[in-house]
Amino acid sequence: MKNKNAVKMQVQCPMPKLDFDVITLGHGSGGILTNKLLDSGVFDLLSNPILNERHDGAFIEMHGKLAFSTDSFLVSPIFFPGGDIGELAVNGTVNDLAMCGAIPKYLSLSFIIEEGLKMTEFWKILTSIKFACEKAGVQVVTGDTKVVEKGKGDKIFINTSGIGTIHPQANIRAKNIKAGDKIIVSGNIASHGMAIMSVREGLDFDSEIKSDTTNLNHTIIKLISEFGDRIHLLTDPTRGGIATVLKEIALSTEHGIAISQNDFPIDIQVHSACELLGLDPLYVANEGLFLSFVDASIADDFLQLLQEDENGINAKIIGSVVSEHPKQVIMESAIGGKRVVSMLPGEQLPRIC
Amino acid sequence: MKNKNAVKMQVQCPMPKLDFDVITLGHGSGGILTNKLLDSGVFDLLSNPILNERHDGAFIEMHGKLAFSTDSFLVSPIFFPGGDIGELAVNGTVNDLAMCGAIPKYLSLSFIIEEGLKMTEFWKILTSIKFACEKAGVQVVTGDTKVVEKGKGDKIFINTSGIGTIHPQANIRAKNIKAGDKIIVSGNIASHGMAIMSVREGLDFDSEIKSDTTNLNHTIIKLISEFGDRIHLLTDPTRGGIATVLKEIALSTEHGIAISQNDFPIDIQVHSACELLGLDPLYVANEGLFLSFVDASIADDFLQLLQEDENGINAKIIGSVVSEHPKQVIMESAIGGKRVVSMLPGEQLPRIC
Repeated sequence: MKNKNAVKMQVQCPMPKLDFDVITLGHGSGGILTNKLLDSGVFDLLSNPILNERHDGAFIEMHGKLAFSTDSFLVSPIFFPGGDIGELAVNGTVNDLAMCGAIPKYLSLSFIIEEGLKMTEFWKILTSIKFACEKAGVQVVTGDTKVVEKGKGDKIFINTSGIGTIHPQANIRAKNIKAGDKIIVSGNIASHGMAIMSVREGLDFDSEIKSDTTNLNHTIIKLISEFGDRIHLLTDPTRGGIATVLKEIALSTEHGIAISQNDFPIDIQVHSACELLGLDPLYVANEGLFLSFVDASIADDFLQLLQEDENGINAKIIGSVVSEHPKQVIMESAIGGKRVVSMLPGEQLPRIC
Repeated sequence: MKNKNAVKMQVQCPMPKLDFDVITLGHGSGGILTNKLLDSGVFDLLSNPILNERHDGAFIEMHGKLAFSTDSFLVSPIFFPGGDIGELAVNGTVNDLAMCGAIPKYLSLSFIIEEGLKMTEFWKILTSIKFACEKAGVQVVTGDTKVVEKGKGDKIFINTSGIGTIHPQANIRAKNIKAGDKIIVSGNIASHGMAIMSVREGLDFDSEIKSDTTNLNHTIIKLISEFGDRIHLLTDPTRGGIATVLKEIALSTEHGIAISQNDFPIDIQVHSACELLGLDPLYVANEGLFLSFVDASIADDFLQLLQEDENGINAKIIGSVVSEHPKQVIMESAIGGKRVVSMLPGEQLPRIC
């Protein structure tokens, strides 16, 4: 899937011939060079009627309940197995909107580029952004390009912010969680973090560990259309991993969370890599993964529908909301003991997204 | 005004006692330290019911025509005469929305912090953000905090994105410009750029040159309420200065623009500083300044109302839209000659906003 996209990009979006190879401070001046950079194909690549107005902001029309989200992406390296910073930046904000029960519509796109970034790298990122937007069904409608001196940034940082329309049947709030709710993870855990880590550490496995970055919005909307407000909470466990997000949720309610270590789906190679590096996969970052807190009455049907989706093949019920041990996450370990789960204590993997 | 705000901030928002002095990589982990940082007073300072939900995105309700804008701010130094990066980040996006004819409502706030930033500096920036939001009447409803390693950033970069509701009488588009329209500048030019430049170059003047950063939205809404769609275009000439933005506008229409060098209001000290450094003030960045293209029939009344506003005391008519020399900006110089005005050619002042 990822490879097919890469080929499609190369064929459909060859980089235009330019009289510059690298991005310089002048490209962030707001003057001739900035216009030259944007007119070199950036606007053409992301073209849509709203963006093409090129005003100080975008003119859009929306009605009713909306979700609004922002994220800055500074993953290192910017290209990694399974994706790159451009795709990550689109999917990250698309997924945050989806976790609110929203249909993502419009994105803003803001670059902070370190001078010296190769145009070939920038173009590759731009084409990733284009295809990630098409796949998610969103449009970049407004943007910003800034350049910092060498040594004051690191190749490229990207901020995306996004707006979406809340699905009419959605009612996703932490306060809707109740004891008895089942907690479902949509797939194999810890893939994104270990993909980045394996590149950084130069680890060599039988087959490459790939990031799970993808857009989850179509999957989420299918589930909300079917189950409506019996889906109580959705969240994507990115930085800090599943353990951190579960603890945050427990703290924000009056309930406890009980999970079972045996139930977590994980790719065997990712598991090995975690063991090799002494990392607990529950604290490793995910990207194309989400947790659902659903009414127990729909849990099996929800799981079945999710498993039929390309983003939920490995989905599993991993635990439930309990009235015991309020604000605590307790995990039954693989060997039967029980352990209190806390948030990620320090910094495990800096620059993971 | 600025000083009064600074005193108000110190009195009303003392920094809470913390057991850390600087921001570390762990504060960007998404785990315990990130939560600790945000709970140390950040959420309290910017508190509102939408932000306080602390979900992956904000839940908001809006109807009709909206404006959506984004900007990343990486000004150096982060504290400068007349303002700081926090205030700039709020005002910049608020003003971009105002230039669309919108009433700004909601902001996202995303930090990219270099490890080692002092908490006292971060707190000062946060309080600036708080007061700038209050002054503009906007709420921060969603955010993100990331930390990069020492030497991979520069103290702090801030992205703000914003959403506003288009004023019902506004119709602000470059295509609405017509020959005969008068062009009005709202005040003294080049102040922001020269405030930054004078700090960097260590220039000493009789009195300090201050940035003009401020929110323009209340001023703009007053003008739109009075003159409606006879205001054809609004734009704030930030990076690249007035020359660049006028040239961009000329290029986007079939008209020409004629301006007169004598008519540009400029503070005498700013003018001296520009001469000293060999800079053309037309290319120097502004922040709390805007250009209006208005129907000739309302030009005098528009100017009068603007001059009664605290943000328009020095407003002047600087030129007009002409049917001659399409896509060109021609300036009558102080000594009577004529000169073609182009965009800023290279990079005059990097990291100006």
